[in-house]
Amino acid sequence: MLRKLIAEWLGTFSLLATVVGSGIMAERLAGGNVAVALLGNTIPTGAILVVLITVFGPISGAHFNPAVTLCFLLRREIEARAASLFVLAQISGGIVGVFAAHIMFGNPLIDPSSTDRTGLGQWVGEFVATFGLVGTILTCLRARPDFIPVAVGLYITAAYWFTSSTSFANPAVTIGRAFSNTFAGINPADVAAFVGVQLVAAVLATVFFGWFLKDDATDPA
Amino acid sequence: MLRKLIAEWLGTFSLLATVVGSGIMAERLAGGNVAVALLGNTIPTGAILVVLITVFGPISGAHFNPAVTLCFLLRREIEARAASLFVLAQISGGIVGVFAAHIMFGNPLIDPSSTDRTGLGQWVGEFVATFGLVGTILTCLRARPDFIPVAVGLYITAAYWFTSSTSFANPAVTIGRAFSNTFAGINPADVAAFVGVQLVAAVLATVFFGWFLKDDATDPA
Amino acid sequence: MLRKLIAEWLGTFSLLATVVGSGIMAERLAGGNVAVALLGNTIPTGAILVVLITVFGPISGAHFNPAVTLCFLLRREIEARAASLFVLAQISGGIVGVFAAHIMFGNPLIDPSSTDRTGLGQWVGEFVATFGLVGTILTCLRARPDFIPVAVGLYITAAYWFTSSTSFANPAVTIGRAFSNTFAGINPADVAAFVGVQLVAAVLATVFFGWFLKDDATDPA
Amino acid sequence: MLRKLIAEWLGTFSLLATVVGSGIMAERLAGGNVAVALLGNTIPTGAILVVLITVFGPISGAHFNPAVTLCFLLRREIEARAASLFVLAQISGGIVGVFAAHIMFGNPLIDPSSTDRTGLGQWVGEFVATFGLVGTILTCLRARPDFIPVAVGLYITAAYWFTSSTSFANPAVTIGRAFSNTFAGINPADVAAFVGVQLVAAVLATVFFGWFLKDDATDPA
Repeated sequence: MLRKLIAEWLGTFSLLATVVGSGIMAERLAGGNVAVALLGNTIPTGAILVVLITVFGPISGAHFNPAVTLCFLLRREIEARAASLFVLAQISGGIVGVFAAHIMFGNPLIDPSSTDRTGLGQWVGEFVATFGLVGTILTCLRARPDFIPVAVGLYITAAYWFTSSTSFANPAVTIGRAFSNTFAGINPADVAAFVGVQLVAAVLATVFFGWFLKDDATDPA
Repeated sequence: MLRKLIAEWLGTFSLLATVVGSGIMAERLAGGNVAVALLGNTIPTGAILVVLITVFGPISGAHFNPAVTLCFLLRREIEARAASLFVLAQISGGIVGVFAAHIMFGNPLIDPSSTDRTGLGQWVGEFVATFGLVGTILTCLRARPDFIPVAVGLYITAAYWFTSSTSFANPAVTIGRAFSNTFAGINPADVAAFVGVQLVAAVLATVFFGWFLKDDATDPA
Repeated sequence: MLRKLIAEWLGTFSLLATVVGSGIMAERLAGGNVAVALLGNTIPTGAILVVLITVFGPISGAHFNPAVTLCFLLRREIEARAASLFVLAQISGGIVGVFAAHIMFGNPLIDPSSTDRTGLGQWVGEFVATFGLVGTILTCLRARPDFIPVAVGLYITAAYWFTSSTSFANPAVTIGRAFSNTFAGINPADVAAFVGVQLVAAVLATVFFGWFLKDDATDPA
Repeated sequence: MLRKLIAEWLGTFSLLATVVGSGIMAERLAGGNVAVALLGNTIPTGAILVVLITVFGPISGAHFNPAVTLCFLLRREIEARAASLFVLAQISGGIVGVFAAHIMFGNPLIDPSSTDRTGLGQWVGEFVATFGLVGTILTCLRARPDFIPVAVGLYITAAYWFTSSTSFANPAVTIGRAFSNTFAGINPADVAAFVGVQLVAAVLATVFFGWFLKDDATDPA
């Protein structure tokens, strides 16, 4: 279990260091062109997800995301106590990852974000993004489990652009990004609604895809 | 069959939500640099295609495209009734996907496009793009069926740039995008010609590659 | 043999349509930022190469390049007559691919380029690029033949940027691009030197890697 | 051994020619938008790493990096004498690769950089980047050795953006880049500290991941 928790901690640490670090780098260099900055935030995030899920997947399952852990808890593929420890590792690893990015770029260690991310459009976006993320994982798990790292990396690459919130889709990421008043930040006041929507989407996706993939007679290629 | 139709509906929904959503995001952020906006539209579209075809392929074949369904109908690999239902699922899923993008970005739900896309150059582009898409699928199906998701994602990534229409190559996508007066939109008056060219290209590609790949003595690596 | 020649023709046609078409699109949209235009030219080129080599590889070997055909001729893996026909198919397919791009974008069909590409730096670049391309193919062929499509796509993606000529590395591509007074064009007067350097590099790479990989005791992963 | 040394020399030569060459190209074309220039430097670097590690991996292990060679020396997977020769090949190959880029772009052959890269933030960045690089290699080696080329390419793609130094993470790369007063350069006065941090990170990562992966009961997918 210790090894699994370290994997979850290190993975979420690396994910947040990448999301926030590349956000700072991209914003500083983009000369005000926000689409260029978002490209410079998207490509590293997608790339590191493929790496992290590949290398930590065989150890902990590479959740790095309380919404994903909740999904596997509902499916009884992880026990409640382990799930709680996973979530603690994810949230603490994520926050320390944000601190690491701040140290690397010379920003204040803790620097709560003032970027408002709220409203129906963004909540629908987080719902769609998280529902789709859980669906991607569950459908891949049946058809092409070895493809999950690439599928998740590409899915998030797309979701950064097709939602108006740039798809957090992850409570640990949402909490971590509240500590960073940078490109990737979110106002702490907006965190609870995002996390709530993400968890609801994870539950509904688990139920829907549980039914959708049940007794599946299809033959995976 | 219900499961297959849901797969086609969800896949085309996700494809259109990504195409239109990333188009809105990219245009809003690109500060008038249309090439940057097209990069921000291309990368998510290519990425989500790889994911969607991987996860839904084992269930429905992952057509998401009436031109592709027509190809398999001509090859007698799908029955006429099933093909009709597939096309209905694709078109309705695509339209609802456009609505989802509009909700996420706070645009009017239905907002017919005023972007003219017409003329010989664009029709030749749609012909080349659709012919190449069907050819990619049919040649991969023989040589490397497991590579189809990546091949289609990369093919569309290229086709967004090598045609002057940015390669719709898909009647369900064309119809859906008519509902969106945004970066990815197409004037409803221009839809019929695009769809016509796409279907003709699909038929001719099916015939040509049917001959080209017949009795193929090559040994796939 | 007919099928192989069609594969070489179609592949080189598609490659040039993509190189020239995406060059036109990228330059028109980039608002003068040439690096953005080159990104919009690089990504489609790399993507289509992966697709074309995957789908046509099992049929013709997917050379699409007289320098590569010369390499296999020197290695006696293709006969002289077949090699000559391959080169004819590549050059004619490439030129027609340029015409197709011109039709799609409404440019004059034949429009000789006025872009000078000459001088020691560019010739060294073409030498390095072609030497590396042949080396990539020959080393992959031993170690990971299934990886050749991705390796070539990624290699050209890099080479577009690490040479001052943006790496033609292919006589059929060089000849085709002379017909296009667009982003990807090359002044016809500069073609002979480029092609000469490319062929010399191909010969030397064939000799060097033939020795380097001979009696290789390494065990491919 | 000669063949292995040639592989290390050629690989590090190609890596540096790509890093410095694409840096020059990107900076020249980017019109002052540094984020666009960094995209044009990142994508070729990630792409060529995948190619080089794939093709030279079966021959020499494809280190191209004294920090990686040090890691395998500590793990007793390479002997001290071979490791020394590897490092010489890497450093000399890297320097000649920089010269090749300068010739291709018409820059002075030797042109020491005046770009200061120093301070706590950058050193922490180099520590994190090198620790993560070694960790990526060691964890992949257990779980998915065939994935190492893609994992390293994607890891460096991300690391270019999540560290304020753009992640050198490689003493041979650091030394080579000191010879180039271009986008990718580093002031020679700053080299020693970078290399020191990189080597310390490599040692600590070797120790940590040696423990972390020991007696691993997980079953790689």
